[in-house]
Amino acid sequence: MSDDAERMARIALAAVAEPGDPRMTGLVDELGATAVHRHLLDQRHLSGLHDDLAARLERTDPEQTLHHAARAGLRFVIPADEEWPTGLDDLGSAPPVQERGGVPLGLWVKGPLRLADLTGAVAVVGSRSATTYGADIARSLAAGVGRTGRCVISGAAFGIDQAAHRGALAGGGPTVAVLACGADPVDPVAHRALLDHLAAEGAVVSEAPPGWSPTRVRFLSRNRLIAALTVGTVVVEAAVRSGALNTANWATRLNRHLLGVPGPVTSAPSQGVHHLIRTGAATLVTSAQEVLEAVGAVGEHLADEPRAPERPRDRLSTRQQQVLDAVPVATAARTDSIARTAGLGLVEVRSTLNRLAAAGLVDQAEEGWRLAALAHT
Amino acid sequence: MSDDAERMARIALAAVAEPGDPRMTGLVDELGATAVHRHLLDQRHLSGLHDDLAARLERTDPEQTLHHAARAGLRFVIPADEEWPTGLDDLGSAPPVQERGGVPLGLWVKGPLRLADLTGAVAVVGSRSATTYGADIARSLAAGVGRTGRCVISGAAFGIDQAAHRGALAGGGPTVAVLACGADPVDPVAHRALLDHLAAEGAVVSEAPPGWSPTRVRFLSRNRLIAALTVGTVVVEAAVRSGALNTANWATRLNRHLLGVPGPVTSAPSQGVHHLIRTGAATLVTSAQEVLEAVGAVGEHLADEPRAPERPRDRLSTRQQQVLDAVPVATAARTDSIARTAGLGLVEVRSTLNRLAAAGLVDQAEEGWRLAALAHT
Repeated sequence: MSDDAERMARIALAAVAEPGDPRMTGLVDELGATAVHRHLLDQRHLSGLHDDLAARLERTDPEQTLHHAARAGLRFVIPADEEWPTGLDDLGSAPPVQERGGVPLGLWVKGPLRLADLTGAVAVVGSRSATTYGADIARSLAAGVGRTGRCVISGAAFGIDQAAHRGALAGGGPTVAVLACGADPVDPVAHRALLDHLAAEGAVVSEAPPGWSPTRVRFLSRNRLIAALTVGTVVVEAAVRSGALNTANWATRLNRHLLGVPGPVTSAPSQGVHHLIRTGAATLVTSAQEVLEAVGAVGEHLADEPRAPERPRDRLSTRQQQVLDAVPVATAARTDSIARTAGLGLVEVRSTLNRLAAAGLVDQAEEGWRLAALAHT
Repeated sequence: MSDDAERMARIALAAVAEPGDPRMTGLVDELGATAVHRHLLDQRHLSGLHDDLAARLERTDPEQTLHHAARAGLRFVIPADEEWPTGLDDLGSAPPVQERGGVPLGLWVKGPLRLADLTGAVAVVGSRSATTYGADIARSLAAGVGRTGRCVISGAAFGIDQAAHRGALAGGGPTVAVLACGADPVDPVAHRALLDHLAAEGAVVSEAPPGWSPTRVRFLSRNRLIAALTVGTVVVEAAVRSGALNTANWATRLNRHLLGVPGPVTSAPSQGVHHLIRTGAATLVTSAQEVLEAVGAVGEHLADEPRAPERPRDRLSTRQQQVLDAVPVATAARTDSIARTAGLGLVEVRSTLNRLAAAGLVDQAEEGWRLAALAHT
């Protein structure tokens, strides 16, 4: 069985089966495409696949499909290819979700990026109806990931997806769109320019043959590929019904990292993300560095603990802080009262107060010592 | 040893020691206040307590302190009292944080609420420099908690604290302020009216004797009381340096529930909360119901899973959904193409499409079937 026969069989089967139909992906995974193709043409009834498949298979011409696709700049990548992204193989052992699943028969790809080079890629996904907040964050996270040379994968939809692709490009990183329709969409789409750019610089990928339209089921199939192609998925905004939650579900099933960006609790597009974090399915992230720390090798990217800017009091000795902390917040106090509060001797407290006054942290007034404005910062 | 002697000894010791000084709280916990008082008057050097304590103790007049306080409407509640909130006893076994800790010698209380009746109270705390978003959420969470009759405890500071008290009052629930200064603040305070209201309707509480000023150390001591008096602490907004994180730390040490409300990742006052959630110290909450579910007995308050409103497609049969899902999202398709995608027979698909059209979910055009606007909702 040559790779070429296997490729043609996969193209033919992909032309008659729905993307991610687990009956088909399961059979091909088990028997190989060439055998399944032959069995179907022999009209054998396999695992409940419909009988008219054979008739439709006979009408397919994989050589011609490949030829046409190649003229449009598309290639068909199958598991036997060096370019095959091995992360997809994990789909073979994960049970279907909403009747979609399995290793894809192959991927139609347009663009210079080799899929095998996507190691360490990060998915950034979310709502079509994103807020400007969500889009800004998606852009900034993707730019931060892109700057490290890691690929950002998303679905090229309006809202978060597009912001993610644009952010990755801005960060100078590779980026890949995985589509629910064919990888060379023929329908007029508003984001044509972005897809053309991705096809020229990165890659546009689909399990569906060229020319196929997007349907709800194809979006569900597509989402599993986004999760499988990446080491982690970041959900930026996702309402309770968002397809991004389906991608999140796949990330968890495939043992990928699942990360979520919070937002105002009053914002509907953040509700789905908050639910993921609240239930422990996703880890809360607030920056590209935290994303990289989560998906990277241990210690590769260590996010800084959030730190406030240094305050004048941080430079004081322990004893000086002790005295400063004993000065009332709003009113003035005399030296003996401060000494009692601090639990220190009068002479020592007096000289420390003088030093704090010289540093601009306390002021001496008629009624006693007061905190200066600087001490409040 | 009468309760009365013990009370007077505690008032006297509280008048010469800093609130939450673990050397003093530890000794009193071990030996009882009467014994510690006697030892100190005997000038014995105990655990490094300063020698001038004895001199200062001699000058205190607990009877008079209590008399003056009572005239201002304050009482002094000690562990032997029926009113003592037993949650505070947990402080006896927790190690100090930032050199503060231990069971308080007693609490000065103003207001009709009996502290022993605070069972199930919830702390709602956060930044002084709250955003309007944070204040709105604090108010709404506290109102929701208040409506169940549970007490809301906070620190009466500007920002989140005040919003929490006001929300609790709006919800018709009891609310208690725990202060770092004396429970009858003499300094002019901007929120005088709120404190007067709390003292009239709920309670104002402090470990510090009447008339004492707030200091940074006293805020740290106060925070441990807020955590100990409640079954859970909700942090609404807290910048990286916020004192609310000290309260959060105490809640964790005392095995109380720690909950955090997320906000925009671009908002500095949410940074501290995000860190608590990210590191797993706090559980993300978005509503009063989620707070109640977390702190309540299992099943007492079950938060609804977030649900989107029902869509027209939810009322369809599985078969009808299958056909609807096979109609392309943006373009039109002919019946045979939809039947292929759906994997169903032509006749059945045709009749189902007619039924979907009658329900307003698809439209038939010259080029084929299209999703109607209703199907997108």
